[in-house]
Amino acid sequence: MKVLSELMGYRESIKVLDATMRDGGLVNDFYFSDDFVKALYKTNIEAGVDYMEMGYRASKKVFDESKFGKWKFCSDDHIREIVGENNTDLKIAIMADIGRHELDDFDQKVNSPVDMVRVATYIHQMPEAIQMIEDAAKKGYETTCNLMAISTSQKENIDVAINMVCQTPVDCIYIVDSFGAFCPEQIARVAEHYMEVGEKYNKKIGIHTHNNQQLAFANTIEACGDGVDLLDATYLGMGRGAGNCAMELLLGFLKNPKYNIFPVYRFIEDYMLEIKEQCKWGYDLQYLMTGQLNQHPRMAIKFTNDERKDYSEFYKEMTE
Amino acid sequence: MKVLSELMGYRESIKVLDATMRDGGLVNDFYFSDDFVKALYKTNIEAGVDYMEMGYRASKKVFDESKFGKWKFCSDDHIREIVGENNTDLKIAIMADIGRHELDDFDQKVNSPVDMVRVATYIHQMPEAIQMIEDAAKKGYETTCNLMAISTSQKENIDVAINMVCQTPVDCIYIVDSFGAFCPEQIARVAEHYMEVGEKYNKKIGIHTHNNQQLAFANTIEACGDGVDLLDATYLGMGRGAGNCAMELLLGFLKNPKYNIFPVYRFIEDYMLEIKEQCKWGYDLQYLMTGQLNQHPRMAIKFTNDERKDYSEFYKEMTE
Repeated sequence: MKVLSELMGYRESIKVLDATMRDGGLVNDFYFSDDFVKALYKTNIEAGVDYMEMGYRASKKVFDESKFGKWKFCSDDHIREIVGENNTDLKIAIMADIGRHELDDFDQKVNSPVDMVRVATYIHQMPEAIQMIEDAAKKGYETTCNLMAISTSQKENIDVAINMVCQTPVDCIYIVDSFGAFCPEQIARVAEHYMEVGEKYNKKIGIHTHNNQQLAFANTIEACGDGVDLLDATYLGMGRGAGNCAMELLLGFLKNPKYNIFPVYRFIEDYMLEIKEQCKWGYDLQYLMTGQLNQHPRMAIKFTNDERKDYSEFYKEMTE
Repeated sequence: MKVLSELMGYRESIKVLDATMRDGGLVNDFYFSDDFVKALYKTNIEAGVDYMEMGYRASKKVFDESKFGKWKFCSDDHIREIVGENNTDLKIAIMADIGRHELDDFDQKVNSPVDMVRVATYIHQMPEAIQMIEDAAKKGYETTCNLMAISTSQKENIDVAINMVCQTPVDCIYIVDSFGAFCPEQIARVAEHYMEVGEKYNKKIGIHTHNNQQLAFANTIEACGDGVDLLDATYLGMGRGAGNCAMELLLGFLKNPKYNIFPVYRFIEDYMLEIKEQCKWGYDLQYLMTGQLNQHPRMAIKFTNDERKDYSEFYKEMTE
């Protein structure tokens, strides 16, 4: 059992990463207004958030620039328009998606407002992920490896993958529950495994959750109690499908006095409610089903976009 | 750490109680149509639910009958109109609220379709709760003691209260997180305490949660993993304020083959969606705030009914 003192106190090493523009960008095709992004940046600073992920740096060879907002591509110039030289304690992160990125799109850290490159990869793409991590580390960035969809991978293979990436200069390895399939008891076991390898190689562990079973926050604080240090959250839980661990839940829970919940509430009121009217995300039964069935949410997203409400029919489709 | 075998297998002693009409009745003043109640009864039977709580048996001296639906009072006659002689495996429960009940309203079990009387009490009402439990047990009912709002009680006092009630013929003592204030780590500690006393006196332990922090399901399965046997849930989480642990989450999680999730989805689609359009419940920031502040949700319910969205102002009101 975890100890009460850690619920009343705090661990200095815990860091919070705001992934609203990245995972939330999957909901609105990255069309965030500059006004929104500036207010979010200011809010994160006031709230004491540690990292702000501004989107993907996606390959323009793979994705048509005219079909997405600029935060799908996150150029250094666009980031600078928001953060200037970013003389704050808030670090800037971007995500590279393996198979959909170009190494040449990443300048030397010294020329970039970006602090951290997060490398999202499936387990069968490890060599390319490692190449990306080594390139970004050599250029001077902090790096993370976000190993996706592990709820469908075998433990032996996960073990090989995290041991492979631990040979690189990567700073942090993320537990990613892409399908919202895990419950806290399983997260405890996964965290124990990652922590064991992480301690051996002196790597931090992070967690990124989805809310298919209303367990995104519960899984995040379970991992946090188990020693996981980098915690992803998004405002109002904005993220693909059922969304993510909500920033308002997480910052209300963490006891480090550097975190302030008030600006979070104000930002949600001023900016997120409007977006919530226009875009669809969050817990609903179709996501619960794909989560409990340990499946990719794509069919549930289609069900949502088609404005279907025949849950029982959808359940038959997903299980036949 | 709990063992994986219990996540894949099941414990025969676990029972699920549907509290939709009782806690959900607090949302719509107990105005459920007979059509709805009959369909819910049928669904619970098909889904393998163990108990169906049909409402409160409230005192007509305290509450004006003309201002509530009949399930606030749950007469044996009204229950019989739905369940007949109830020749099924589904047991019928009703709740008595200490200070708002009349012993004379409870006939002998042999004359009643009710199987279980649940006694809801605050910690300062124990003698009256014990009187009610002893009366109901003597009349032949199964009984539970639902000790409310324990997140604001001191452990020493809770200990006295549960030891007092363990001297009665009560069958089960409930952990009730009235304010949605607990996180799973705290539930684990509370469950350990209740289980310890329960084992000494051969009493079952149950849990009833609220979803203020999106932890109702997480807290329920935490307690379940800790050995708690009676699990409350409501369809679509319908219940006061932020609502309760959702039946669809819980039955999808439990592995006993007697439970069937399909009728649950069908009932939600056919009946709950319409109610959700008319009534307000479920997670929102005002409930998160009262939950994290360990306060009664009444101010958050007023905020909701007033259709306010100025969360940051509400936060100031709640903390000044």
